[in-house]
Amino acid sequence: MSRTEIRVSGFGGQGIILSGYIIGKAAAIYDKKNATMTQAYGPESRGGACAAQVVISEQEIDDPEVSSPQVLVAMSQEAYTTFASKVSDECTVLIDEDLVDPTAISKVRPQTFSIPAVRLAEEMGKKVVANIIMLGFFAGKTGVVSREAMEQAIVSSVPPRFAELNRKAFERGYDISQQAQ
Amino acid sequence: MSRTEIRVSGFGGQGIILSGYIIGKAAAIYDKKNATMTQAYGPESRGGACAAQVVISEQEIDDPEVSSPQVLVAMSQEAYTTFASKVSDECTVLIDEDLVDPTAISKVRPQTFSIPAVRLAEEMGKKVVANIIMLGFFAGKTGVVSREAMEQAIVSSVPPRFAELNRKAFERGYDISQQAQ
Repeated sequence: MSRTEIRVSGFGGQGIILSGYIIGKAAAIYDKKNATMTQAYGPESRGGACAAQVVISEQEIDDPEVSSPQVLVAMSQEAYTTFASKVSDECTVLIDEDLVDPTAISKVRPQTFSIPAVRLAEEMGKKVVANIIMLGFFAGKTGVVSREAMEQAIVSSVPPRFAELNRKAFERGYDISQQAQ
Repeated sequence: MSRTEIRVSGFGGQGIILSGYIIGKAAAIYDKKNATMTQAYGPESRGGACAAQVVISEQEIDDPEVSSPQVLVAMSQEAYTTFASKVSDECTVLIDEDLVDPTAISKVRPQTFSIPAVRLAEEMGKKVVANIIMLGFFAGKTGVVSREAMEQAIVSSVPPRFAELNRKAFERGYDISQQAQ
């Protein structure tokens, strides 16, 4: 696949933009592809909604817009309801199972997978790593970026004193992605 | 002006992407305009170069690409040399005077202004707020976003315990922008 589109969505403060940034970095710096990350702020952003669009390609990227994502991450009900109803049946949809009820849209997409990322992060003592747990789940479920690339991109994007915590969070999410659902 | 394009550039670890994020947030959430922020990762990003593109508009933004920016911020010599040679004479160019020699390109743009952002940040005891000092300088020199909007966007984007430090860094940059050069 020469072009992969990804949307990461949720609300402000969940680290959604950082997640998009890290996915692009993983693809570009470690997997040696081209990538763009776009954040749009509009009226909806004033309500707290938040989304990052990532495009990954072997070629140069002329258009950084995401029109029909292959992967959608939704960390809030509002984000899920807004975006999941617009994706194709082939789209992989990743949700936080405590924050999102997937049956809220008329047709749940067949490739929908859930993880209790926030709850797992709380168990690790740091709720803010929920997005990193989700990135581990993302890497394992989609293969869009390699495990090694994502791990390196995470570790190089957080303050050094939090590197080990974030690495563990990543591994927690990755491990769960490999279990049967 | 209905559409304003901005490029913030430097190297990894300077908070370039966060700066772009904050400018877009200031415009969208507090000044009530539309905004997009795009980060492109390509071969150059593997060398440590880093840039964020921001588009601000009263209308909806169909194209988040920056082709001819009205404002260029350069926090490294490499970024300056790459991008300043491509902007128009009307472009406002903001540089860190200790990191960038503006005469490195054949024709210095007439609206070029400098501030020792990193040095001032070190004087404040936190080198990492250099980008926030630059955002204060940016707000004062360009008026692209209001002083109040930028300050609120900064304070709401950093951890609460660093809010006061960042507010002071913003004010330091803003104050210097109001002095004659």
